[in-house]
Amino acid sequence: MKTRPSIILAGLLCAITTLSFAQKDGVPFPEGYRNWLHAKSMLIQPGHALENPFQGIHHVYANGKAAKGLKSGKYDDGSVLVFDLLKYEEKDKTIQEGERKLVGVMRKDSTKYASTGGWGFEGFTGNSKTERLVNDGGKSCFGCHEPQKGKNYVFSGLRD
Amino acid sequence: MKTRPSIILAGLLCAITTLSFAQKDGVPFPEGYRNWLHAKSMLIQPGHALENPFQGIHHVYANGKAAKGLKSGKYDDGSVLVFDLLKYEEKDKTIQEGERKLVGVMRKDSTKYASTGGWGFEGFTGNSKTERLVNDGGKSCFGCHEPQKGKNYVFSGLRD
Repeated sequence: MKTRPSIILAGLLCAITTLSFAQKDGVPFPEGYRNWLHAKSMLIQPGHALENPFQGIHHVYANGKAAKGLKSGKYDDGSVLVFDLLKYEEKDKTIQEGERKLVGVMRKDSTKYASTGGWGFEGFTGNSKTERLVNDGGKSCFGCHEPQKGKNYVFSGLRD
Repeated sequence: MKTRPSIILAGLLCAITTLSFAQKDGVPFPEGYRNWLHAKSMLIQPGHALENPFQGIHHVYANGKAAKGLKSGKYDDGSVLVFDLLKYEEKDKTIQEGERKLVGVMRKDSTKYASTGGWGFEGFTGNSKTERLVNDGGKSCFGCHEPQKGKNYVFSGLRD
């Protein structure tokens, strides 16, 4: 079967539109986050309500603006929080980090993401900087974060 | 009973000497390490050979020089690695961070600490920056690190 040029063109336009959305309104991959403030860590075990997809050990990182936000409770636009989720392995009375499952991102932009509390949500699968996991404009993420309104929709607190 | 001035003086001199040793040759508290590179984390469970005192969740942080060392395997003098040990609590299918147990420090100075592989070792109890835990010049610490000679006595590897 021959593929019609118009179908190819439509597919191409769709891809470009998606790409353009990702570039314009999508949350960018948080380059360099491994050098940001490590705010806290937690381990989610099998059987937890958020097991899928969050079972693993996660580390939360904050860029400069988000680090200030964790202290003050107010987040300036440009604040970025990263939820870095790794598999873990339990062996010989230790729990050790394994491969990366996903990189979750919250980026504050009170105009662009007004419908989800001023935060844009995205997830990148494994070690990819381009394979995106969120396909509902962050609504499902926000649903879970919404009860944290008093903390500006952020779960993490700041510890020493 | 009256305390003789000479005893007070002797005690004072001893305190000053200890302080002076700590200032001159002791490993200083790693101020600001919570903003350094978070290299990796691990959890040590009850029953592990190092349970006492290392049971807990620990995070390893590296200053700029030590971060380069983790990549190259060579550590310049001034490299500092921190082993930040917290208690943990297992509840509702999560493992969450608790209070700080100790802050372990390795500081590279190939002259000053030549007898322990060029690394000075120290531990600070809980959240104290002054209560030191190592009282044998780091020999016991080094005993455990010595088999890692091929990695310049460092256990941690660098992960993404």
